[in-house]
Amino acid sequence: MSSTFGTLLKVSTFGESHCKGVGAVLDGCPPGMRLSEADIQPQLDRRRPGQSKLTTDRQEADRVTIFSGVENGLTLGTPIGLFVPNKDQRPGDYREMSKIPRPSHADFTYQMKYGIRASSGGGRSSARETIGRVAAGAVAEKMLRERFGVEIVAWVSAVSDIAADVDENLVTRQRVDGNPMRCPSTAAAEKMQTLVARVKEEKDSVGGIVSCVCRHVPAGWGEPVFDKLEAKLAQAMLSIPATKGFEIGSGFAGSRMRGSVHNDPFVAVEGGLGTRTNNSGGIQGGISNGAQIVFRVAFKPPATIGLAQETVDFEGQAVTLEAKGRHDPCVVPRAVPIVEAMAALVLGDMALRQKDRLKMKF
Amino acid sequence: MSSTFGTLLKVSTFGESHCKGVGAVLDGCPPGMRLSEADIQPQLDRRRPGQSKLTTDRQEADRVTIFSGVENGLTLGTPIGLFVPNKDQRPGDYREMSKIPRPSHADFTYQMKYGIRASSGGGRSSARETIGRVAAGAVAEKMLRERFGVEIVAWVSAVSDIAADVDENLVTRQRVDGNPMRCPSTAAAEKMQTLVARVKEEKDSVGGIVSCVCRHVPAGWGEPVFDKLEAKLAQAMLSIPATKGFEIGSGFAGSRMRGSVHNDPFVAVEGGLGTRTNNSGGIQGGISNGAQIVFRVAFKPPATIGLAQETVDFEGQAVTLEAKGRHDPCVVPRAVPIVEAMAALVLGDMALRQKDRLKMKF
Amino acid sequence: MSSTFGTLLKVSTFGESHCKGVGAVLDGCPPGMRLSEADIQPQLDRRRPGQSKLTTDRQEADRVTIFSGVENGLTLGTPIGLFVPNKDQRPGDYREMSKIPRPSHADFTYQMKYGIRASSGGGRSSARETIGRVAAGAVAEKMLRERFGVEIVAWVSAVSDIAADVDENLVTRQRVDGNPMRCPSTAAAEKMQTLVARVKEEKDSVGGIVSCVCRHVPAGWGEPVFDKLEAKLAQAMLSIPATKGFEIGSGFAGSRMRGSVHNDPFVAVEGGLGTRTNNSGGIQGGISNGAQIVFRVAFKPPATIGLAQETVDFEGQAVTLEAKGRHDPCVVPRAVPIVEAMAALVLGDMALRQKDRLKMKF
Amino acid sequence: MSSTFGTLLKVSTFGESHCKGVGAVLDGCPPGMRLSEADIQPQLDRRRPGQSKLTTDRQEADRVTIFSGVENGLTLGTPIGLFVPNKDQRPGDYREMSKIPRPSHADFTYQMKYGIRASSGGGRSSARETIGRVAAGAVAEKMLRERFGVEIVAWVSAVSDIAADVDENLVTRQRVDGNPMRCPSTAAAEKMQTLVARVKEEKDSVGGIVSCVCRHVPAGWGEPVFDKLEAKLAQAMLSIPATKGFEIGSGFAGSRMRGSVHNDPFVAVEGGLGTRTNNSGGIQGGISNGAQIVFRVAFKPPATIGLAQETVDFEGQAVTLEAKGRHDPCVVPRAVPIVEAMAALVLGDMALRQKDRLKMKF
Repeated sequence: MSSTFGTLLKVSTFGESHCKGVGAVLDGCPPGMRLSEADIQPQLDRRRPGQSKLTTDRQEADRVTIFSGVENGLTLGTPIGLFVPNKDQRPGDYREMSKIPRPSHADFTYQMKYGIRASSGGGRSSARETIGRVAAGAVAEKMLRERFGVEIVAWVSAVSDIAADVDENLVTRQRVDGNPMRCPSTAAAEKMQTLVARVKEEKDSVGGIVSCVCRHVPAGWGEPVFDKLEAKLAQAMLSIPATKGFEIGSGFAGSRMRGSVHNDPFVAVEGGLGTRTNNSGGIQGGISNGAQIVFRVAFKPPATIGLAQETVDFEGQAVTLEAKGRHDPCVVPRAVPIVEAMAALVLGDMALRQKDRLKMKF
Repeated sequence: MSSTFGTLLKVSTFGESHCKGVGAVLDGCPPGMRLSEADIQPQLDRRRPGQSKLTTDRQEADRVTIFSGVENGLTLGTPIGLFVPNKDQRPGDYREMSKIPRPSHADFTYQMKYGIRASSGGGRSSARETIGRVAAGAVAEKMLRERFGVEIVAWVSAVSDIAADVDENLVTRQRVDGNPMRCPSTAAAEKMQTLVARVKEEKDSVGGIVSCVCRHVPAGWGEPVFDKLEAKLAQAMLSIPATKGFEIGSGFAGSRMRGSVHNDPFVAVEGGLGTRTNNSGGIQGGISNGAQIVFRVAFKPPATIGLAQETVDFEGQAVTLEAKGRHDPCVVPRAVPIVEAMAALVLGDMALRQKDRLKMKF
Repeated sequence: MSSTFGTLLKVSTFGESHCKGVGAVLDGCPPGMRLSEADIQPQLDRRRPGQSKLTTDRQEADRVTIFSGVENGLTLGTPIGLFVPNKDQRPGDYREMSKIPRPSHADFTYQMKYGIRASSGGGRSSARETIGRVAAGAVAEKMLRERFGVEIVAWVSAVSDIAADVDENLVTRQRVDGNPMRCPSTAAAEKMQTLVARVKEEKDSVGGIVSCVCRHVPAGWGEPVFDKLEAKLAQAMLSIPATKGFEIGSGFAGSRMRGSVHNDPFVAVEGGLGTRTNNSGGIQGGISNGAQIVFRVAFKPPATIGLAQETVDFEGQAVTLEAKGRHDPCVVPRAVPIVEAMAALVLGDMALRQKDRLKMKF
Repeated sequence: MSSTFGTLLKVSTFGESHCKGVGAVLDGCPPGMRLSEADIQPQLDRRRPGQSKLTTDRQEADRVTIFSGVENGLTLGTPIGLFVPNKDQRPGDYREMSKIPRPSHADFTYQMKYGIRASSGGGRSSARETIGRVAAGAVAEKMLRERFGVEIVAWVSAVSDIAADVDENLVTRQRVDGNPMRCPSTAAAEKMQTLVARVKEEKDSVGGIVSCVCRHVPAGWGEPVFDKLEAKLAQAMLSIPATKGFEIGSGFAGSRMRGSVHNDPFVAVEGGLGTRTNNSGGIQGGISNGAQIVFRVAFKPPATIGLAQETVDFEGQAVTLEAKGRHDPCVVPRAVPIVEAMAALVLGDMALRQKDRLKMKF
């Protein structure tokens, strides 16, 4: 298990579905920043299930408490302990899984690796693990916003084959929250909702894509060669449950382009150089170039579905599995704040790491 | 700069285009393994430029020397020092760049971050930096092969919009090397060669995709939640120069599938459970499930092209840039051993990290 | 701030004197081990103030709760969240310190580094920070005991110039707890108690030495060259508040010996080789040799004393400081479980790290 | 094996006694600093054997070459590769050791851990491993000196029971090199030389103590709670071969003092606060306070001696061992630059790590 992420801004998460609670310790947050639960709760609410018919009906309060690192409303520069108690525990829903590994879920691999697993199914592989990330990410995001003016906005850009046409230069978090799909294109959002509703009725699930833009990131962030900015973003995104792909800037489409078209020519801008186009997605050679950072994350359809599946139990006996309980037919709307949180944790760490060099003068 | 990768199998690379040489220190390689330069040189030769008309004509010997960690042909369990001297130095080719940042290259971002950069252009962002990775990866690959029977094969699956239809269950390294494109589909390879030849004539460049399969990886490798196997693979691949995307298993296509289709049902196989399909790409919940690991990496077209580009110099003055010297019109054939090396470094580290837990009995 | 320790067995602590609570996240604990609060509370009770007249009279319950990582009484291999709520909060006692940095305390350095500090005085530099270490250390110690039979016993071997003559081969934790000084030599313990009582009356404080022995540590633990076993023990011990020195085996006395006397000749023992003497303290070349590991840690007298001290405030104005509130005249009895905890965290990490190599066969 | 040290200023060393060479990769050195081999060679020369009759007569050139990270005499901010070829190889001297583990040497523990070891005896446990540290430390020291004015001076303060009375406020490196013992007290140095000469004649060895002072370290360096400045110094020093103890400031003597005597009262000094005394050794709560940092390191007598030793071979058969070849009767004079190098690597890393926080303003 490796539940710590970051070099100077370091988050350590803990908790599985059905223990006392989940949370995180965020070490390295600069001192003197105003911080309270009110800065964190909104992102947890956006991540929470039961926000609409589109997602699971489970109701979870997910109230965060700051255990440490803050006094008189200011960060001390000490580790910030964050905790969210678990409520909804219905082991009953999961009894079946003790015998049958759910297809494309982590029951089998956890059993193989640890020789034991949480009765809840999932345990650390459950979506609930992401609460600690979102809480810590909200703190990192505030630091980035207040200190550097960085702005991070993610949205649902596709559900199944319904793609949304969104201007990444104009999209705002408010626009994103304009509908329960978190898709700023109303037209696409409506199609997506219809599809997800149908899929839910069919007890099936569907995948999608979350896009993210990070604005006002100064040039110079990223640590070549192994901690290039896009490399750490890729690790961060692929560490989110149910992700299958990551692309930055032109991404896979860039592999079909000519250099003469793909290259981003430099132009003079106020205070230095900018680029005419942004196929690089704001990063060159692993270091931010001052343009906005744009990337996309692919999410597979949730593995837990009500539809009957022909599979085998741990003993290899053929069985038909029909997942009980309530499950998300489509996770991407809830994945939006998770993607934003991981982006904030990566950028926050890079912000602290790069400072050490720029300040050196000989 | 962050030039160290891995937790227990740790590689530290060094060197830029025009210093005395490039190399790596590989710490954590198990003791008692037969090792000599002959185990490493072949992958360096596959990475080397000038192997065919398709790539740059520069001739580089790139002979590796093992400095330490091996005695009487056996690894000692101590750090393995690997070194490849630099030869070809023609600062002349690069004089122009001291004034003009090449579009979509790292000249500008290195200057912004470090306030200085290698006269060679690129420096650590140059493809030459990957020599240390390939050398260390060859050692990791031998360890994986001899100790676990792991087999890693990468190939060119697309150049521009020419995609190759390859059976990932049958592809071998020998088949891959059957043509200079390193594309096991002869039909596609020929089309690719024609395209690359034309692109080269046009002084332009073109991108492509490298696919990779890792066979016989035991179930249980990968360290959730932040060092999930796919997350570390994603970081490793996006740390390779010119990469823009990573996908595992169904990847972005998976985002368009239904759960009932995407899920990989379990089946009884000799010695345990397997899966009927492999949309998961051999990984579930961040942990290998015993199926073969399959992923793809998108490479953008090389930034350095001979075609005239309208851009600006560091002072913001409009200039027309026509890169001198010899440059790769298409890097994917040479990227194949680099992708294999990074996969081996990730898997080698996970192999060592997972052992500590499985052996514990209470 | 760097509040994470360990490579595979990784502890992250959080909390300061006067926030909601203190605790730790322990990642990497092997799965399948029986664990409950009852395994952890005893060491917290030994660390707790108010156990006797010798230490501060403050009463703290310090009840630990396991938040995660355990289900049905067994560890899951997932991060173990540990929490102890803070009770006793009397900011009044500390008002003075907002203006005056206490001599030899961390008020001044925290202010210089972070530009802010906990009103409680100390904050992360307060002894309360060690609660998370002791809780996590108790888990590591159980793993070491159950899996390897490792036994860790620390004791007070000196207070001021009163040194205890203790046979490190025979000392047990029961003997150590035979008196409130935690000194297994009754004669010395009585002298120490008399001295500490007098020092307390005089509103002064006094230092001492804690010795520790680790038995049944298998040969082969420790990771040269920078994570040699003695090096990590030294870091761990010097990270404990109020420590000024560390020595292993012969220690500083060894610097006055001849090689012919200091060397530990090998002897044949059941199942291999042992040593006739143990000036090495159980470690050679940074790796355990199978003999018992013996080290000593020097603690300075507590900085907070009731006696009047001539010093200056943050503005540099001369002031006389007389610390209010209740303070330990001598911390070494309470330091015993902290030293044991840090030893367990170091050995537990080394236990996991060394396994990866031994199991490799070519 | 763990051969990497540091978080932002990261050194990775490699090489054993009898491979092609030894060296280090130093990552994280700030860009734009003048650097050439001439900045590094002097410390390697001070570490080199054969400087006087007091040490081994072996002649080693130990010429360092900078492989990378420097161009036109300036650091690039990229990894600095450092290499020193091995010369003197006389396996003959060591044949005996293949059968007999030398008492108090690492032959036995390396064999137990790795199941193999360098024929040279020692391998990574040999003093030759420290060459990479000294080379990298010289670079770190230059950065600290040029950027912060930090001055590091170590000296031999004791050999066996001959202690030198040295004013740590006045000692300079020039004074230290005034005699081959590297002891600034001429009177003590002469006694030491006489003793070492006699010990050498007797084919025995003797231990000693190296003291070190670090001046002009700004207040605010050190990362509580686990990477406290004294904790990392302790790890660094105990990672040096043959060390048995570390103490900072008052050290073990501090454990015998009263708080009223030990506390360092604050005084107003130019530009802020200083302390009247320095029992803290320049560090409070793990963070530098601006006073000079003072610590001591205990070295045991070298394990390899010519005197006959009664021991057993790997099979447990009684044998008499008389080490052939030429060996140091006393290592402390050569240990001086090694202690300085490790202090520079710790301080250099802390210098980079602390900057990230101080610069944050909200």
